[in-house]
Amino acid sequence: MCELLGMSANVPTDICFSFKGLKERGGRTGPHRDGWGVAFYEGKGVCTFKDALPSYESEIARLVSDYPIKSCAVIAHIRQANRGRVSLQNTHPFTRELWGRYWTYAHNGQLHDYKDLPVDRFQPVGTTDSERAFCYLMSELDKRYPTKPRSRRLAFRFLQKQAQTLQKLGVFNMMLTDGEYLLTYCTTKLHWITRRAPFGIARLSDVDVDIDFSRETTQKDVVTIIATEPLTLNEQWHKMEAGESQLFRDGEPI
Amino acid sequence: MCELLGMSANVPTDICFSFKGLKERGGRTGPHRDGWGVAFYEGKGVCTFKDALPSYESEIARLVSDYPIKSCAVIAHIRQANRGRVSLQNTHPFTRELWGRYWTYAHNGQLHDYKDLPVDRFQPVGTTDSERAFCYLMSELDKRYPTKPRSRRLAFRFLQKQAQTLQKLGVFNMMLTDGEYLLTYCTTKLHWITRRAPFGIARLSDVDVDIDFSRETTQKDVVTIIATEPLTLNEQWHKMEAGESQLFRDGEPI
Repeated sequence: MCELLGMSANVPTDICFSFKGLKERGGRTGPHRDGWGVAFYEGKGVCTFKDALPSYESEIARLVSDYPIKSCAVIAHIRQANRGRVSLQNTHPFTRELWGRYWTYAHNGQLHDYKDLPVDRFQPVGTTDSERAFCYLMSELDKRYPTKPRSRRLAFRFLQKQAQTLQKLGVFNMMLTDGEYLLTYCTTKLHWITRRAPFGIARLSDVDVDIDFSRETTQKDVVTIIATEPLTLNEQWHKMEAGESQLFRDGEPI
Repeated sequence: MCELLGMSANVPTDICFSFKGLKERGGRTGPHRDGWGVAFYEGKGVCTFKDALPSYESEIARLVSDYPIKSCAVIAHIRQANRGRVSLQNTHPFTRELWGRYWTYAHNGQLHDYKDLPVDRFQPVGTTDSERAFCYLMSELDKRYPTKPRSRRLAFRFLQKQAQTLQKLGVFNMMLTDGEYLLTYCTTKLHWITRRAPFGIARLSDVDVDIDFSRETTQKDVVTIIATEPLTLNEQWHKMEAGESQLFRDGEPI
Protein backbone atom coordinates (compact mmCIF):
# COMPACT_ATOMS: atom_id res chain seq x y z
CA MET A 1 0.00 0.00 0.00
CA CYS A 2 1.00 3.65 0.00
CA GLU A 3 0.33 6.87 1.87
CA LEU A 4 -1.24 10.06 0.60
CA LEU A 5 -0.85 13.68 1.65
CA GLY A 6 -2.75 16.65 0.28
CA MET A 7 -3.25 20.33 1.05
CA SER A 8 -5.85 22.92 0.12
CA ALA A 9 -5.32 26.49 1.33
CA ASN A 10 -6.80 29.96 0.80
CA VAL A 11 -3.32 31.59 0.76
CA PRO A 12 -0.07 30.15 -0.59
CA THR A 13 1.22 27.98 2.25
CA ASP A 14 4.19 25.65 2.54
CA ILE A 15 3.78 21.99 3.38
CA CYS A 16 7.23 21.50 5.00
CA PHE A 17 5.85 20.51 8.41
CA SER A 18 3.45 17.84 7.12
CA PHE A 19 5.88 16.59 4.46
CA LYS A 20 8.54 16.16 7.16
CA GLY A 21 6.22 13.70 8.89
CA LEU A 22 5.26 11.85 5.69
CA LYS A 23 8.88 11.54 4.51
CA GLU A 24 9.76 9.52 7.65
CA ARG A 25 7.17 6.92 6.71
CA GLY A 26 9.02 6.36 3.43
CA GLY A 27 11.63 4.00 4.88
CA ARG A 28 11.99 4.84 8.58
CA THR A 29 8.72 4.87 10.56
CA GLY A 30 6.83 3.23 7.67
CA PRO A 31 7.50 0.64 4.95
CA HIS A 32 6.75 2.87 1.92
CA ARG A 33 10.23 2.67 0.37
CA ASP A 34 9.35 2.40 -3.33
CA GLY A 35 9.42 6.02 -4.44
CA TRP A 36 7.73 9.26 -3.54
CA GLY A 37 6.49 12.40 -5.25
CA VAL A 38 4.90 15.78 -4.58
CA ALA A 39 3.14 18.25 -6.87
CA PHE A 40 2.86 21.97 -6.02
CA TYR A 41 0.54 24.31 -7.90
CA GLU A 42 1.26 28.00 -8.38
CA GLY A 43 -1.83 29.33 -10.11
CA LYS A 44 -2.41 27.07 -13.12
CA GLY A 45 1.24 25.98 -13.19
CA VAL A 46 2.48 22.86 -11.45
CA CYS A 47 5.89 21.60 -10.40
CA THR A 48 6.30 17.94 -9.48
CA PHE A 49 9.27 16.48 -7.64
CA LYS A 50 9.54 12.72 -7.73
CA ASP A 51 12.08 10.03 -7.14
CA ALA A 52 12.07 6.21 -7.19
CA LEU A 53 14.22 6.21 -4.00
CA PRO A 54 12.77 5.98 -0.46
CA SER A 55 11.76 9.49 0.66
CA TYR A 56 13.62 9.01 3.92
CA GLU A 57 16.91 8.69 1.99
CA SER A 58 16.18 11.08 -0.91
CA GLU A 59 18.19 14.31 -1.26
CA ILE A 60 15.30 15.79 -3.23
CA ALA A 61 12.83 14.93 -0.45
CA ARG A 62 15.17 16.58 2.04
CA LEU A 63 15.06 19.78 -0.03
CA VAL A 64 11.26 19.64 -0.24
CA SER A 65 10.93 19.20 3.53
CA ASP A 66 13.28 22.11 4.33
CA TYR A 67 12.57 24.62 1.55
CA PRO A 68 9.22 26.43 1.89
CA ILE A 69 7.50 26.19 -1.50
CA LYS A 70 4.22 28.12 -1.12
CA SER A 71 1.14 26.70 -2.79
CA CYS A 72 -2.67 26.57 -2.48
CA ALA A 73 -2.94 22.98 -3.74
CA VAL A 74 -0.51 20.13 -3.11
CA ILE A 75 -0.66 16.36 -3.60
CA ALA A 76 2.08 14.05 -2.27
CA HIS A 77 2.52 10.28 -2.19
CA ILE A 78 4.91 7.68 -0.80
CA ARG A 79 4.79 4.30 -2.45
CA GLN A 80 4.92 0.69 -1.37
CA ALA A 81 4.73 -1.09 -4.72
CA ASN A 82 2.18 -3.79 -5.46
CA ARG A 83 1.17 -3.40 -9.14
CA GLY A 84 4.07 -2.20 -11.36
CA ARG A 85 7.81 -2.31 -10.62
CA VAL A 86 9.73 0.39 -8.73
CA SER A 87 10.59 3.05 -11.33
CA LEU A 88 10.07 6.72 -12.07
CA GLN A 89 7.31 5.98 -14.59
CA ASN A 90 5.32 4.23 -11.84
CA THR A 91 5.90 6.94 -9.21
CA HIS A 92 2.92 9.10 -8.19
CA PRO A 93 1.55 11.72 -8.53
CA PHE A 94 0.52 11.58 -12.19
CA THR A 95 -0.47 14.61 -14.28
CA ARG A 96 -2.44 15.13 -17.50
CA GLU A 97 -3.74 18.25 -19.25
CA LEU A 98 -7.45 18.74 -20.03
CA TRP A 99 -9.25 21.98 -21.06
CA GLY A 100 -5.98 23.91 -20.65
CA ARG A 101 -5.45 22.87 -17.02
CA TYR A 102 -3.13 20.35 -15.40
CA TRP A 103 -4.90 17.61 -13.41
CA THR A 104 -2.82 15.78 -10.81
CA TYR A 105 -3.69 12.58 -8.99
CA ALA A 106 -2.34 10.03 -6.50
CA HIS A 107 -3.82 6.74 -5.29
CA ASN A 108 -3.50 4.46 -2.30
CA GLY A 109 -4.87 0.94 -2.63
CA GLN A 110 -4.98 -1.95 -5.02
CA LEU A 111 -7.41 -2.68 -7.87
CA HIS A 112 -8.23 -5.92 -9.68
CA ASP A 113 -9.45 -6.18 -13.28
CA TYR A 114 -8.11 -2.71 -13.97
CA LYS A 115 -6.47 -3.60 -17.27
CA ASP A 116 -9.78 -3.42 -19.10
CA LEU A 117 -10.68 0.07 -17.91
CA PRO A 118 -11.25 2.11 -21.08
CA VAL A 119 -8.82 5.01 -21.35
CA ASP A 120 -9.18 6.37 -24.93
CA ARG A 121 -6.85 9.26 -25.50
CA PHE A 122 -5.37 9.35 -21.97
CA GLN A 123 -2.86 6.50 -22.15
CA PRO A 124 -0.92 5.25 -19.13
CA VAL A 125 2.86 5.59 -19.43
CA GLY A 126 3.69 3.17 -16.61
CA THR A 127 2.15 -0.15 -15.58
CA THR A 128 0.34 0.61 -12.32
CA ASP A 129 -3.33 0.04 -11.59
CA SER A 130 -3.28 3.60 -10.17
CA GLU A 131 -2.27 5.40 -13.36
CA ARG A 132 -4.72 3.35 -15.43
CA ALA A 133 -7.53 4.35 -13.04
CA PHE A 134 -6.47 8.02 -13.40
CA CYS A 135 -6.49 7.74 -17.21
CA TYR A 136 -9.94 6.16 -16.96
CA LEU A 137 -11.21 9.08 -14.85
CA MET A 138 -9.77 11.66 -17.27
CA SER A 139 -11.18 9.80 -20.29
CA GLU A 140 -14.65 9.60 -18.79
CA LEU A 141 -14.50 13.29 -17.91
CA ASP A 142 -13.41 14.16 -21.44
CA LYS A 143 -16.23 12.04 -22.93
CA ARG A 144 -18.83 13.58 -20.62
CA TYR A 145 -17.62 17.14 -21.28
CA PRO A 146 -15.87 17.34 -24.69
CA THR A 147 -15.57 21.07 -24.01
CA LYS A 148 -15.02 22.70 -20.63
CA PRO A 149 -18.25 22.71 -18.57
CA ARG A 150 -19.52 26.06 -17.30
CA SER A 151 -18.33 25.16 -13.78
CA ARG A 152 -15.42 22.91 -12.89
CA ARG A 153 -17.33 21.98 -9.77
CA LEU A 154 -19.65 19.99 -12.05
CA ALA A 155 -16.60 18.16 -13.38
CA PHE A 156 -15.57 17.19 -9.84
CA ARG A 157 -19.09 16.03 -9.00
CA PHE A 158 -18.90 13.81 -12.09
CA LEU A 159 -15.51 12.45 -10.98
CA GLN A 160 -16.93 11.59 -7.56
CA LYS A 161 -19.49 9.36 -9.30
CA GLN A 162 -16.82 7.68 -11.43
CA ALA A 163 -14.79 6.97 -8.29
CA GLN A 164 -17.74 4.90 -7.04
CA THR A 165 -17.28 2.65 -10.09
CA LEU A 166 -13.59 2.24 -9.34
CA GLN A 167 -14.09 1.30 -5.71
CA LYS A 168 -15.92 -1.82 -6.95
CA LEU A 169 -12.51 -2.98 -8.22
CA GLY A 170 -10.76 -2.87 -4.84
CA VAL A 171 -9.22 -0.35 -2.48
CA PHE A 172 -9.41 3.15 -3.91
CA ASN A 173 -8.29 5.98 -1.64
CA MET A 174 -7.33 8.90 -3.87
CA MET A 175 -6.77 12.62 -4.34
CA LEU A 176 -7.23 14.59 -7.54
CA THR A 177 -6.73 18.32 -8.10
CA ASP A 178 -6.76 20.86 -10.92
CA GLY A 179 -4.87 23.36 -8.75
CA GLU A 180 -8.05 24.97 -7.46
CA TYR A 181 -10.36 22.17 -6.34
CA LEU A 182 -9.04 19.12 -4.51
CA LEU A 183 -11.14 15.96 -4.52
CA THR A 184 -10.67 13.10 -2.06
CA TYR A 185 -12.25 9.67 -2.18
CA CYS A 186 -11.98 7.11 0.62
CA THR A 187 -12.63 3.38 0.65
CA THR A 188 -10.50 2.37 3.65
CA LYS A 189 -8.28 5.11 5.14
CA LEU A 190 -8.17 8.88 4.79
CA HIS A 191 -8.17 11.65 7.42
CA TRP A 192 -8.33 15.43 7.22
CA ILE A 193 -8.04 18.47 9.43
CA THR A 194 -8.85 22.12 8.77
CA ARG A 195 -6.68 24.61 10.64
CA ARG A 196 -7.85 28.20 11.12
CA ALA A 197 -7.57 30.95 13.76
CA PRO A 198 -6.96 30.66 16.64
CA PHE A 199 -3.95 28.60 15.54
CA GLY A 200 -2.06 26.47 18.05
CA ILE A 201 0.92 24.19 18.38
CA ALA A 202 1.02 20.88 16.48
CA ARG A 203 3.36 17.97 17.16
CA LEU A 204 4.35 15.44 14.46
CA SER A 205 3.85 11.78 15.35
CA ASP A 206 6.73 10.40 13.22
CA VAL A 207 9.56 12.68 14.24
CA ASP A 208 10.22 14.96 17.17
CA VAL A 209 9.11 18.24 15.58
CA ASP A 210 6.66 20.88 16.86
CA ILE A 211 5.28 23.89 15.05
CA ASP A 212 3.47 26.94 16.41
CA PHE A 213 1.13 27.79 13.54
CA SER A 214 0.18 31.11 15.15
CA ARG A 215 3.69 32.34 14.26
CA GLU A 216 3.41 31.22 10.63
CA THR A 217 -0.08 32.40 9.74
CA THR A 218 -2.47 35.33 9.66
CA GLN A 219 -5.97 35.40 11.16
CA LYS A 220 -7.51 34.85 7.73
CA ASP A 221 -5.59 31.71 6.76
CA VAL A 222 -7.54 28.49 6.25
CA VAL A 223 -5.53 25.35 5.53
CA THR A 224 -6.79 21.79 5.19
CA ILE A 225 -4.37 18.86 5.34
CA ILE A 226 -5.51 15.42 4.15
CA ALA A 227 -3.48 12.30 4.95
CA THR A 228 -3.86 8.51 5.00
CA GLU A 229 -3.09 8.49 8.73
CA PRO A 230 -3.11 11.57 11.01
CA LEU A 231 0.32 13.23 10.98
CA THR A 232 0.07 14.95 14.37
CA LEU A 233 -0.42 13.62 17.90
CA ASN A 234 -2.27 16.45 19.62
CA GLU A 235 -5.00 17.41 17.14
CA GLN A 236 -8.37 15.95 16.24
CA TRP A 237 -8.50 14.68 12.63
CA HIS A 238 -11.73 13.78 10.79
CA LYS A 239 -11.78 10.14 9.80
CA MET A 240 -13.44 9.55 6.43
CA GLU A 241 -15.82 6.60 6.04
CA ALA A 242 -15.84 3.94 3.33
CA GLY A 243 -17.38 5.41 0.15
CA GLU A 244 -17.08 8.98 1.46
CA SER A 245 -15.87 11.71 -0.82
CA GLN A 246 -14.99 15.29 0.00
CA LEU A 247 -14.24 18.26 -2.24
CA PHE A 248 -12.06 21.15 -0.98
CA ARG A 249 -11.39 24.63 -2.30
CA ASP A 250 -9.46 27.51 -0.72
CA GLY A 251 -8.83 25.33 2.34
CA GLU A 252 -12.52 24.72 3.03
CA PRO A 253 -14.58 21.55 2.60
CA ILE A 254 -17.40 22.39 0.14
CA MET B 1 15.04 35.45 -25.49
CA CYS B 2 16.06 32.35 -23.57
CA GLU B 3 18.71 29.66 -23.50
CA LEU B 4 18.35 25.95 -24.09
CA LEU B 5 20.33 22.98 -22.85
CA GLY B 6 19.83 19.34 -23.83
CA MET B 7 21.55 16.01 -23.40
CA SER B 8 21.34 12.67 -25.17
CA ALA B 9 23.48 9.80 -23.82
CA ASN B 10 23.89 6.04 -24.29
CA VAL B 11 24.30 5.44 -20.53
CA PRO B 12 22.59 7.30 -17.67
CA THR B 13 24.74 10.40 -17.20
CA ASP B 14 24.38 13.43 -14.96
CA ILE B 15 24.20 16.95 -16.36
CA CYS B 16 25.62 18.73 -13.27
CA PHE B 17 28.65 20.18 -15.08
CA SER B 18 26.70 21.68 -18.00
CA PHE B 19 23.80 22.81 -15.81
CA LYS B 20 26.27 24.59 -13.53
CA GLY B 21 27.28 26.72 -16.52
CA LEU B 22 23.71 27.35 -17.71
CA LYS B 23 22.50 28.29 -14.23
CA GLU B 24 24.96 31.22 -14.10
CA ARG B 25 23.35 32.69 -17.23
CA GLY B 26 20.05 32.84 -15.33
CA GLY B 27 20.80 36.13 -13.55
CA ARG B 28 24.58 36.39 -13.21
CA THR B 29 26.51 36.00 -16.51
CA GLY B 30 23.29 36.27 -18.56
CA PRO B 31 19.97 38.14 -18.41
CA HIS B 32 17.65 35.08 -18.35
CA ARG B 33 16.09 35.81 -14.95
CA ASP B 34 12.47 34.86 -15.61
CA GLY B 35 12.38 31.25 -14.51
CA TRP B 36 14.12 28.01 -15.37
CA GLY B 37 13.33 24.32 -15.65
CA VAL B 38 14.88 20.95 -16.35
CA ALA B 39 13.33 17.58 -17.23
CA PHE B 40 15.17 14.29 -16.59
CA TYR B 41 13.98 11.00 -18.09
CA GLU B 42 14.50 7.64 -16.42
CA GLY B 43 13.21 5.13 -18.93
CA LYS B 44 9.71 6.29 -19.88
CA GLY B 45 9.34 8.27 -16.64
CA VAL B 46 10.17 11.94 -16.37
CA CYS B 47 10.84 14.29 -13.47
CA THR B 48 10.74 18.05 -14.10
CA PHE B 49 12.11 20.67 -11.73
CA LYS B 50 11.00 24.21 -12.46
CA ASP B 51 10.84 27.54 -10.72
CA ALA B 52 9.77 31.08 -11.74
CA LEU B 53 12.83 32.47 -9.87
CA PRO B 54 16.18 33.21 -11.57
CA SER B 55 18.20 29.97 -11.72
CA TYR B 56 21.20 31.78 -10.28
CA GLU B 57 19.24 32.44 -7.06
CA SER B 58 17.10 29.29 -6.93
CA GLU B 59 17.62 26.74 -4.14
CA ILE B 60 16.13 24.07 -6.39
CA ALA B 61 18.59 24.93 -9.21
CA ARG B 62 21.41 24.66 -6.69
CA LEU B 63 20.28 21.14 -5.82
CA VAL B 64 20.06 20.18 -9.51
CA SER B 65 23.57 21.49 -10.21
CA ASP B 66 25.12 19.63 -7.24
CA TYR B 67 23.13 16.40 -7.06
CA PRO B 68 23.95 13.90 -9.84
CA ILE B 69 20.64 12.77 -11.35
CA LYS B 70 21.52 10.20 -14.02
CA SER B 71 19.54 10.27 -17.25
CA CYS B 72 19.82 9.43 -20.97
CA ALA B 73 17.64 12.37 -22.08
CA VAL B 74 17.48 15.84 -20.52
CA ILE B 75 15.99 19.17 -21.61
CA ALA B 76 16.66 22.39 -19.66
CA HIS B 77 15.70 26.03 -20.22
CA ILE B 78 16.34 29.43 -18.67
CA ARG B 79 13.83 32.13 -19.56
CA GLN B 80 13.91 35.77 -20.45
CA ALA B 81 10.22 36.49 -20.88
CA ASN B 82 8.77 38.12 -23.98
CA ARG B 83 5.32 36.55 -24.59
CA GLY B 84 3.53 35.63 -21.35
CA ARG B 85 4.19 36.92 -17.81
CA VAL B 86 6.73 35.44 -15.39
CA SER B 87 4.95 32.52 -13.69
CA LEU B 88 5.23 28.79 -13.19
CA GLN B 89 2.61 28.09 -15.86
CA ASN B 90 4.79 29.88 -18.44
CA THR B 91 8.04 28.21 -17.35
CA HIS B 92 9.62 25.68 -19.74
CA PRO B 93 10.00 22.78 -20.34
CA PHE B 94 6.43 21.68 -21.12
CA THR B 95 5.24 18.05 -21.14
CA ARG B 96 2.30 16.21 -22.69
CA GLU B 97 1.45 12.51 -23.01
CA LEU B 98 0.84 10.86 -26.41
CA TRP B 99 0.72 7.11 -27.23
CA GLY B 100 1.63 6.30 -23.62
CA ARG B 101 4.86 8.35 -23.63
CA TYR B 102 5.73 11.73 -22.14
CA TRP B 103 6.90 14.31 -24.70
CA THR B 104 8.90 17.24 -23.35
CA TYR B 105 9.81 20.46 -25.14
CA ALA B 106 11.51 23.83 -24.67
CA HIS B 107 11.81 26.79 -27.05
CA ASN B 108 14.08 29.77 -27.53
CA GLY B 109 12.81 32.57 -29.75
CA GLN B 110 9.73 34.62 -30.43
CA LEU B 111 6.79 33.89 -32.75
CA HIS B 112 4.19 36.22 -34.26
CA ASP B 113 0.65 35.19 -35.26
CA TYR B 114 0.93 32.17 -33.00
CA LYS B 115 -2.49 32.56 -31.42
CA ASP B 116 -4.21 31.04 -34.46
CA LEU B 117 -2.11 27.87 -34.52
CA PRO B 118 -4.62 25.01 -34.30
CA VAL B 119 -4.12 22.88 -31.20
CA ASP B 120 -7.19 20.62 -30.96
CA ARG B 121 -6.99 18.41 -27.91
CA PHE B 122 -3.55 19.64 -26.72
CA GLN B 123 -4.50 22.90 -25.03
CA PRO B 124 -1.93 25.35 -23.69
CA VAL B 125 -2.15 26.00 -19.93
CA GLY B 126 -0.08 29.21 -19.97
CA THR B 127 0.03 32.14 -22.38
CA THR B 128 3.38 31.78 -24.15
CA ASP B 129 3.95 31.50 -27.89
CA SER B 130 6.27 28.59 -27.01
CA GLU B 131 3.68 26.37 -25.34
CA ARG B 132 1.14 27.07 -28.11
CA ALA B 133 3.72 26.02 -30.70
CA PHE B 134 4.34 22.81 -28.72
CA CYS B 135 0.61 22.07 -28.53
CA TYR B 136 0.42 22.67 -32.30
CA LEU B 137 3.25 20.16 -32.90
CA MET B 138 1.62 17.53 -30.68
CA SER B 139 -1.80 18.10 -32.32
CA GLU B 140 -0.40 17.74 -35.81
CA LEU B 141 1.45 14.57 -34.77
CA ASP B 142 -1.73 13.14 -33.25
CA LYS B 143 -3.72 13.97 -36.40
CA ARG B 144 -1.09 12.43 -38.67
CA TYR B 145 -0.77 9.28 -36.52
CA PRO B 146 -3.99 8.71 -34.57
CA THR B 147 -2.33 5.50 -33.34
CA LYS B 148 1.35 5.00 -32.62
CA PRO B 149 3.35 4.65 -35.86
CA ARG B 150 5.50 1.53 -36.30
CA SER B 151 8.62 3.61 -35.65
CA ARG B 152 8.87 6.72 -33.49
CA ARG B 153 11.63 7.87 -35.79
CA LEU B 154 8.91 8.50 -38.37
CA ALA B 155 7.13 10.68 -35.84
CA PHE B 156 10.27 12.77 -35.33
CA ARG B 157 10.79 13.13 -39.07
CA PHE B 158 7.23 14.42 -39.28
CA LEU B 159 7.90 16.88 -36.42
CA GLN B 160 10.96 18.19 -38.26
CA LYS B 161 8.70 19.12 -41.18
CA GLN B 162 6.20 20.84 -38.91
CA ALA B 163 9.01 22.86 -37.34
CA GLN B 164 9.67 24.31 -40.80
CA THR B 165 6.14 25.72 -40.74
CA LEU B 166 6.73 27.28 -37.32
CA GLN B 167 9.98 28.97 -38.32
CA LYS B 168 7.94 31.06 -40.79
CA LEU B 169 6.39 32.71 -37.71
CA GLY B 170 9.69 33.96 -36.26
CA VAL B 171 12.64 32.64 -34.27
CA PHE B 172 12.20 28.98 -33.47
CA ASN B 173 15.12 27.25 -31.79
CA MET B 174 13.75 24.23 -29.97
CA MET B 175 14.31 20.80 -28.42
CA LEU B 176 11.75 18.02 -28.12
CA THR B 177 12.22 14.54 -26.64
CA ASP B 178 10.19 11.45 -25.81
CA GLY B 179 12.93 10.20 -23.49
CA GLU B 180 14.61 8.18 -26.22
CA TYR B 181 14.95 10.45 -29.26
CA LEU B 182 15.89 14.10 -28.90
CA LEU B 183 15.05 16.48 -31.75
CA THR B 184 16.64 19.90 -32.20
CA TYR B 185 15.61 22.63 -34.62
CA CYS B 186 17.62 25.81 -35.21
CA THR B 187 16.65 29.09 -36.82
CA THR B 188 19.26 31.36 -35.21
CA LYS B 189 21.42 29.81 -32.49
CA LEU B 190 22.10 26.26 -31.36
CA HIS B 191 25.37 24.37 -30.82
CA TRP B 192 26.19 20.78 -29.96
CA ILE B 193 29.13 18.61 -29.06
CA THR B 194 29.48 14.81 -28.84
CA ARG B 195 31.95 13.59 -26.24
CA ARG B 196 33.38 10.06 -26.48
CA ALA B 197 36.66 8.27 -25.66
CA PRO B 198 39.34 9.45 -25.37
CA PHE B 199 37.72 11.89 -22.92
CA GLY B 200 39.58 15.02 -21.84
CA ILE B 201 39.26 18.01 -19.55
CA ALA B 202 36.55 20.62 -20.18
CA ARG B 203 36.39 24.12 -18.73
CA LEU B 204 33.14 26.05 -18.27
CA SER B 205 33.00 29.54 -19.75
CA ASP B 206 30.56 31.03 -17.20
CA VAL B 207 32.14 29.96 -13.93
CA ASP B 208 35.57 28.77 -12.90
CA VAL B 209 34.93 25.01 -13.03
CA ASP B 210 36.88 22.24 -14.80
CA ILE B 211 35.96 18.60 -15.22
CA ASP B 212 38.09 15.65 -16.26
CA PHE B 213 35.56 13.48 -18.10
CA SER B 214 38.00 10.55 -18.25
CA ARG B 215 37.46 10.12 -14.49
CA GLU B 216 33.65 10.17 -14.81
CA THR B 217 33.12 7.89 -17.82
CA THR B 218 33.87 4.49 -19.33
CA GLN B 219 35.35 3.89 -22.80
CA LYS B 220 31.91 3.10 -24.20
CA ASP B 221 30.10 6.28 -23.09
CA VAL B 222 28.76 8.62 -25.76
CA VAL B 223 27.21 11.87 -24.60
CA THR B 224 25.92 14.76 -26.71
CA ILE B 225 25.28 18.16 -25.15
CA ILE B 226 23.22 20.74 -27.06
CA ALA B 227 23.17 24.40 -25.97
CA THR B 228 22.19 27.81 -27.30
CA GLU B 229 25.79 29.00 -26.85
CA PRO B 230 28.78 26.73 -26.21
CA LEU B 231 29.20 26.12 -22.47
CA THR B 232 32.93 25.33 -22.50
CA LEU B 233 35.98 27.33 -23.57
CA ASN B 234 38.38 24.66 -24.73
CA GLU B 235 36.27 22.40 -26.94
CA GLN B 236 35.02 22.60 -30.51
CA TRP B 237 31.22 22.81 -30.71
CA HIS B 238 29.19 22.29 -33.94
CA LYS B 239 27.25 25.40 -34.84
CA MET B 240 23.85 24.66 -36.37
CA GLU B 241 22.69 26.63 -39.40
CA ALA B 242 19.37 28.40 -39.93
CA GLY B 243 16.74 25.81 -40.83
CA GLU B 244 18.94 22.92 -39.70
CA SER B 245 17.46 20.11 -37.65
CA GLN B 246 19.21 17.23 -35.94
CA LEU B 247 17.87 14.10 -34.29
CA PHE B 248 19.85 12.36 -31.53
CA ARG B 249 19.52 8.96 -29.88
CA ASP B 250 21.81 7.20 -27.39
CA GLY B 251 24.16 10.18 -27.56
CA GLU B 252 24.67 9.94 -31.33
CA PRO B 253 23.41 12.23 -34.10
CA ILE B 254 21.27 10.05 -36.41
